[in-house]
Amino acid sequence: MASTRIEKDSMGPIDVPADKLWGAQTQRSLEHFHISSEKMPAALIHALALTKRAAASVNMDLGLLPAERAKAIIAAADEVLADKHSAEFPLSIWQTGSGTQTNMNMNEVLANRASEILGGVRGEERKVHPNDDVNKSQSSNDVFPTAMHVAAVIELRETLIPQLKVLHKTLSDKATAYRDIVKIGRTHLQDATPLTLGQEISGWVAMLGHSLTHIENSIPHIAELALGGTAVGTGLNTHPEYAVRVAKALAELTQQPFVTSPNKFEALATCDALVHGHGALKGLAASLMKIANDVRWLSSGPRCGIGEIAIPENEPGSSIMPGKVNPTQCEAMTMLCAQVLGNDVAVNIGGASGNFELNVFRPLVIHNFLQSVRLLADGMSGFNEHCAAGIEPNRDRITQLLNESLMLVTALNTHIGYDKAAEIAKKAHKEGLTLKASALKLGYLTEEQFDEWVRPEAMVGSMKV
Amino acid sequence: MASTRIEKDSMGPIDVPADKLWGAQTQRSLEHFHISSEKMPAALIHALALTKRAAASVNMDLGLLPAERAKAIIAAADEVLADKHSAEFPLSIWQTGSGTQTNMNMNEVLANRASEILGGVRGEERKVHPNDDVNKSQSSNDVFPTAMHVAAVIELRETLIPQLKVLHKTLSDKATAYRDIVKIGRTHLQDATPLTLGQEISGWVAMLGHSLTHIENSIPHIAELALGGTAVGTGLNTHPEYAVRVAKALAELTQQPFVTSPNKFEALATCDALVHGHGALKGLAASLMKIANDVRWLSSGPRCGIGEIAIPENEPGSSIMPGKVNPTQCEAMTMLCAQVLGNDVAVNIGGASGNFELNVFRPLVIHNFLQSVRLLADGMSGFNEHCAAGIEPNRDRITQLLNESLMLVTALNTHIGYDKAAEIAKKAHKEGLTLKASALKLGYLTEEQFDEWVRPEAMVGSMKV
Amino acid sequence: MASTRIEKDSMGPIDVPADKLWGAQTQRSLEHFHISSEKMPAALIHALALTKRAAASVNMDLGLLPAERAKAIIAAADEVLADKHSAEFPLSIWQTGSGTQTNMNMNEVLANRASEILGGVRGEERKVHPNDDVNKSQSSNDVFPTAMHVAAVIELRETLIPQLKVLHKTLSDKATAYRDIVKIGRTHLQDATPLTLGQEISGWVAMLGHSLTHIENSIPHIAELALGGTAVGTGLNTHPEYAVRVAKALAELTQQPFVTSPNKFEALATCDALVHGHGALKGLAASLMKIANDVRWLSSGPRCGIGEIAIPENEPGSSIMPGKVNPTQCEAMTMLCAQVLGNDVAVNIGGASGNFELNVFRPLVIHNFLQSVRLLADGMSGFNEHCAAGIEPNRDRITQLLNESLMLVTALNTHIGYDKAAEIAKKAHKEGLTLKASALKLGYLTEEQFDEWVRPEAMVGSMKV
Amino acid sequence: MASTRIEKDSMGPIDVPADKLWGAQTQRSLEHFHISSEKMPAALIHALALTKRAAASVNMDLGLLPAERAKAIIAAADEVLADKHSAEFPLSIWQTGSGTQTNMNMNEVLANRASEILGGVRGEERKVHPNDDVNKSQSSNDVFPTAMHVAAVIELRETLIPQLKVLHKTLSDKATAYRDIVKIGRTHLQDATPLTLGQEISGWVAMLGHSLTHIENSIPHIAELALGGTAVGTGLNTHPEYAVRVAKALAELTQQPFVTSPNKFEALATCDALVHGHGALKGLAASLMKIANDVRWLSSGPRCGIGEIAIPENEPGSSIMPGKVNPTQCEAMTMLCAQVLGNDVAVNIGGASGNFELNVFRPLVIHNFLQSVRLLADGMSGFNEHCAAGIEPNRDRITQLLNESLMLVTALNTHIGYDKAAEIAKKAHKEGLTLKASALKLGYLTEEQFDEWVRPEAMVGSMKV
Repeated sequence: MASTRIEKDSMGPIDVPADKLWGAQTQRSLEHFHISSEKMPAALIHALALTKRAAASVNMDLGLLPAERAKAIIAAADEVLADKHSAEFPLSIWQTGSGTQTNMNMNEVLANRASEILGGVRGEERKVHPNDDVNKSQSSNDVFPTAMHVAAVIELRETLIPQLKVLHKTLSDKATAYRDIVKIGRTHLQDATPLTLGQEISGWVAMLGHSLTHIENSIPHIAELALGGTAVGTGLNTHPEYAVRVAKALAELTQQPFVTSPNKFEALATCDALVHGHGALKGLAASLMKIANDVRWLSSGPRCGIGEIAIPENEPGSSIMPGKVNPTQCEAMTMLCAQVLGNDVAVNIGGASGNFELNVFRPLVIHNFLQSVRLLADGMSGFNEHCAAGIEPNRDRITQLLNESLMLVTALNTHIGYDKAAEIAKKAHKEGLTLKASALKLGYLTEEQFDEWVRPEAMVGSMKV
Repeated sequence: MASTRIEKDSMGPIDVPADKLWGAQTQRSLEHFHISSEKMPAALIHALALTKRAAASVNMDLGLLPAERAKAIIAAADEVLADKHSAEFPLSIWQTGSGTQTNMNMNEVLANRASEILGGVRGEERKVHPNDDVNKSQSSNDVFPTAMHVAAVIELRETLIPQLKVLHKTLSDKATAYRDIVKIGRTHLQDATPLTLGQEISGWVAMLGHSLTHIENSIPHIAELALGGTAVGTGLNTHPEYAVRVAKALAELTQQPFVTSPNKFEALATCDALVHGHGALKGLAASLMKIANDVRWLSSGPRCGIGEIAIPENEPGSSIMPGKVNPTQCEAMTMLCAQVLGNDVAVNIGGASGNFELNVFRPLVIHNFLQSVRLLADGMSGFNEHCAAGIEPNRDRITQLLNESLMLVTALNTHIGYDKAAEIAKKAHKEGLTLKASALKLGYLTEEQFDEWVRPEAMVGSMKV
Repeated sequence: MASTRIEKDSMGPIDVPADKLWGAQTQRSLEHFHISSEKMPAALIHALALTKRAAASVNMDLGLLPAERAKAIIAAADEVLADKHSAEFPLSIWQTGSGTQTNMNMNEVLANRASEILGGVRGEERKVHPNDDVNKSQSSNDVFPTAMHVAAVIELRETLIPQLKVLHKTLSDKATAYRDIVKIGRTHLQDATPLTLGQEISGWVAMLGHSLTHIENSIPHIAELALGGTAVGTGLNTHPEYAVRVAKALAELTQQPFVTSPNKFEALATCDALVHGHGALKGLAASLMKIANDVRWLSSGPRCGIGEIAIPENEPGSSIMPGKVNPTQCEAMTMLCAQVLGNDVAVNIGGASGNFELNVFRPLVIHNFLQSVRLLADGMSGFNEHCAAGIEPNRDRITQLLNESLMLVTALNTHIGYDKAAEIAKKAHKEGLTLKASALKLGYLTEEQFDEWVRPEAMVGSMKV
Repeated sequence: MASTRIEKDSMGPIDVPADKLWGAQTQRSLEHFHISSEKMPAALIHALALTKRAAASVNMDLGLLPAERAKAIIAAADEVLADKHSAEFPLSIWQTGSGTQTNMNMNEVLANRASEILGGVRGEERKVHPNDDVNKSQSSNDVFPTAMHVAAVIELRETLIPQLKVLHKTLSDKATAYRDIVKIGRTHLQDATPLTLGQEISGWVAMLGHSLTHIENSIPHIAELALGGTAVGTGLNTHPEYAVRVAKALAELTQQPFVTSPNKFEALATCDALVHGHGALKGLAASLMKIANDVRWLSSGPRCGIGEIAIPENEPGSSIMPGKVNPTQCEAMTMLCAQVLGNDVAVNIGGASGNFELNVFRPLVIHNFLQSVRLLADGMSGFNEHCAAGIEPNRDRITQLLNESLMLVTALNTHIGYDKAAEIAKKAHKEGLTLKASALKLGYLTEEQFDEWVRPEAMVGSMKV
């Protein structure tokens, strides 16, 4: 009872598990690259299957591949896209820098499965060839960058952007809901002039809005596909119409704005589109870190912090201490933002390290890019559902701090002059008084005047939410 | 004979050098911040003077500042813009994170100088007040971010982008000039199928073209100005028309596309526009590092490297060794690109570290941003003039390597079949023969057939430059 | 048939899968943190089990925990250490920044399992309490940092350092083996004076030797354990001897040099030991990137590159191109080094972001630290076995390049003077001659003189391997 | 009237300002490298002069250089060390990556000046030769790395470490002074169990102590000098005793622990010692960022923040707002720490980018290294003098927050049981009561009992300062 079969490549025969669809080159990669546990992400595998599907279809249309084989490859690719072969893509991120081994993994799986679909066997007697058929009109050097871009655009547009919009909407609603809650402002961590809680939150909303624009602006470059460049960008061995048609096919398959790259040499030799695209992701990470930090500081306490807002209590903060709500969603968010900032450096180094006709830091780049997308998307989703949506103002605390603040004295300048106003503030600070108590003690105005003149709600200006 | 005069602020009197226009707060900053040697860059000082000039003008138009004083402030600002007071701005980057001290430095210099213009003195008896007049309708918290954005947009559009276009043009011309020089391609640093030198260079051109687009796309966010937000973004103490009018005034003064920020809370509390903008700069750095590396590898040698191109010899490479041309412009370029990638991290951390209504990592962020712009612009300028413009192909070497290569065997596949072609290549590799010699030795084709079929120029495909 | 059971915590009851040992807090974390796919690494889970085991043992010895329960906890921890419960630790890296949820995960699993060992049930009627018993004398705030340090020291000393020594030995042997193979040196990528291949490789050996020292020097700080600090570092609720004894117990259990941290406030509030330790790892990454780059450039070709060494052919480089050996192990290595450099930034940001009594970027920091260790260790292992051990000199190519080089002319200076030597070199360069041909053509010396004077092996100096 | 003189190098004659000591190669560098404004730092120029001085001395002792010329070179170097020629070293960081141009700058200046000392002229008729005399037994490739290490060790030991010790002492004294001031602890930004202010500060002290150790551990590798390796590490053209003697001479000159590098190939081909050394600097930066953040948060307010400590008021925080003390020293510190973290990435990329026998990212690496040292040293100095030394506890505020806290309820567990204690805390939280009020209202204990049992000073444990 054989648990393996023999597959061959140009280096000779090799044993492969009988129940696996992959072939010789996948097996060799498994044996040579035992490095950590990061595997090619599912999004990349899907994008690669989409690429193979589109290529088979265009090859068929151009008469370069018999329809029977092309259709079998398409059917096999559809099975991969339906996650029927998830265990067939076991390769590590840490392999050849061109992603060739993952391209061959897909070629081998599709060839063997297509052969079975055609009534043939898997293995050396197969009816579909991994290179000649599945990889027709292709080279790892254009296929893998194409799959990277396809995965990135899909993940950005179907995963990240929707979650960004959800959080934007939640905070926008909060900004509106709390547009009239006047609170103390803080600059340099020090008490400053007042604003409304809605205004404060509106700054977060504007941050997310800008990030959305930046991410959307990064997509056209990423939507350019290398396919058709083959080995070095010249398009050797491809039909003149192939590059344009295969990009169009991918655009139709995915409903994404893919086009063929206008310069295949750039497309093969660099990861520039993803380096730039990750620049938009790191911008979002910087924004989210600021927002999450604001949320946890504003909710700090319950007694010895700022405590102006309450956030949902999702898990026990402390078994003995009611009211201790650890800002765990904020912590997860700030941690993952730090990871995205770290990933940015890895992407930059990989992107800067191409030589001549090929960049061979590709698996690194796409691993970090897709991880960042996933971290940000999932992080925003959790933060939205388990934290942002549940933010509530602690109105009493907000009012208490606002009234204790000495910054409101600025409102008196136009009534009693700067010097007397400053005298009131200084006395209040020195003696630990409220502004009103200090003002009345000094006799510079009446209680009625104070209440009429010192109205924080008149100090929050015209920057409406 | 007094070499100092006394200036005052709310902390009391302080001695200031009599020949300096600055006042008490500048002096205090000088005494408290002796950190390294990085000063506020001239571009930022200019942008700050422009901001003060615009504010004075709008304050005058709105009737908030007497025309005489406003005009004196404008005249003083024009002197700063004409670099008549370069020694008056001595403050360090490493000061308060809001840039308040540099804002006060400008307020003090303009107030004292405006007073002199009006026939008054510098110092406490001055005719123009640093805060009440020069800083009218302003706060450091909106002025400094405004000056940062003004400086960034001007430097990007007047310094960086023009240099980027010059290098783009030089390389584009080279790509055209060398569009027919067929050479060996290289992937994984290994010999691959051929392409033309023009095609190879066209990849660099495409890289720069994309960077240009990315940088231009980053400008609209940076062109949003915080001015009008005052202390915390609410616009406290500003005229309703002020924010829009002052942005318009700055746009007219500079002929740049400035607009008032639609959300002042974002504008004060973050450096997001610059974090994202620097993301485009790091993308350019990654591209330039790849280009400079390709140039120095292609010109490596003279005998023991690749040597396919020659670059200008600008300085002695070695006193004994003719032909040793060290790629010094490439080395300067790759070093400064590494700096930009480091600066990116500093910008990210600064950008992510805002709290509540203010980001107080501003001098750090603008220091790094402007340094990166300057490094990239100057680096491209030098690289263009002293290296790229002088790139010349070493045609003999290119042809020699091309002909020695075994990759041309792929052209025989369609004539004599894969198996025989591989046999020819293997024999050539094993025995150190040329392909032709191996082919003839094996007797699979005639010399005429070889010369007719193995034509590298037919393998460079349709990706025209 | 119930597939869930009810577990409780201070927030109330929650359904937990009946076949799982974890409890309420683990379940809540699973429901609130669906972020990407990075899980708590096995090395950390093991270290946490070791920590619990040591604490139970010391608690028992100090009379703080009944022996029966302590022994059951120890037995349960031993099962975890034997990987019998791998599926019981499903929590994400992206959780609370203190690692509390993973600490509770372990507490719950050990409590339920210990209860079963004692003949009791899992769930609310259990005989061992997760907090009162398993977590006795502990707080997440000291347990999690302790487990981080335990995992880091073990991984460094049992995984990374042994692999580093293996690669060091391999290269050291190569340096010795090739100590007499004279080759051209290269500086600025340009031909320079000769050295031996052994000398070149000895530089790599020295790099690894220094990294070993740096990593070893980083261990004493990491070997300091927070345990005994409990919630904020004061050691509230711990026995006076507890901290010292539990560190000793861990040292004995693991045979590693653990000691109790002399200042628990530092141990809880920072990740400084790991920030510094990762600084040694990034140094190793920088070294390995240089080595791997040298290897792939030296093996570039086969015809159009440098080609001075051959590396093992592990997988097909190209189906048509014999001799094309893609340096895939080098590519995996350079990619993972880029990842380590990115991880370093994430670790730095996390490490710099503590507040007051606690750093809450802990899961981020240990995730990146352990990933870097694993990447470097596994990367060196693969690189050693599949590349470095198989490096062979291409002696013909080395000799050919050496003889073609013009740098050897420096040897003539002392015989015929600088000017004539330079004239020989210039003529050779200009006319494409060998040095000897040029010298003879100019008539400055005889062939015998040339052969006697120009001996590269005499130029490689006294820096013996 | 000639304002220039003619100098020559192997590329021919070039005009040099008559009043400058530099020669042809310096002039060429000035003309080819107009990039930004970063110049070779004075510390590096000093180290280079020390290196030349030592080399001249050893060359003289070994009989390789006539005593007259050697002494003139030494005298000229001493003038440079006395800062008599500061304007003679105008070259940019952004030059050749080997630092050759700065080495030649020094060679030219010393040759011309030594010639003058010997009664000769500056310029082509000079009595001392830049290469043959000043650069004797040297190559830029070993001189520049040597100067980098000399500068780094001196700056670390004479600038950074002393400042680190000063701040350590200041904080250590504060930790002792405030060892009995009990305050609320904070974890997750949330109220936690108490500790003393002294204990909190002792954590900072421990952090600095560890950084000191880490920095000191980084020095032995940096103290290894490349000198004697000459062009590629083989020591071509050097006397067998030269390398050891010149390192000894530098050790004596500087009173620093310099030794000759045991492997010159590593010393030339890498910047590994500085990459690792900067790893210790980034660790210090991470620590200082945490400390500075703690200080500014603890001093936040004055009314609406934490306000447990007061820091010196160095400059006006706000013209109207007494008590608003902006934590400007903390802001400068956190900014410069962010810069150091960015510099670390630049150093890493530069360090990882060596090829073959030389790393050509040297000016970048030393620029960033020395800037980081300066930023940290000066930053600690200012922070110490203008902030840390003036930290004072706000005892009333500390007590108020401590007493308001609900965490003290944990002290009741052992007296009235967990359930009743929790009930007290929950009631207090819900109704906004103090713990005592809640306890008395519930009737679970008397006021006397509360005062006896709830004593925060008993909860701060045994971790003495």
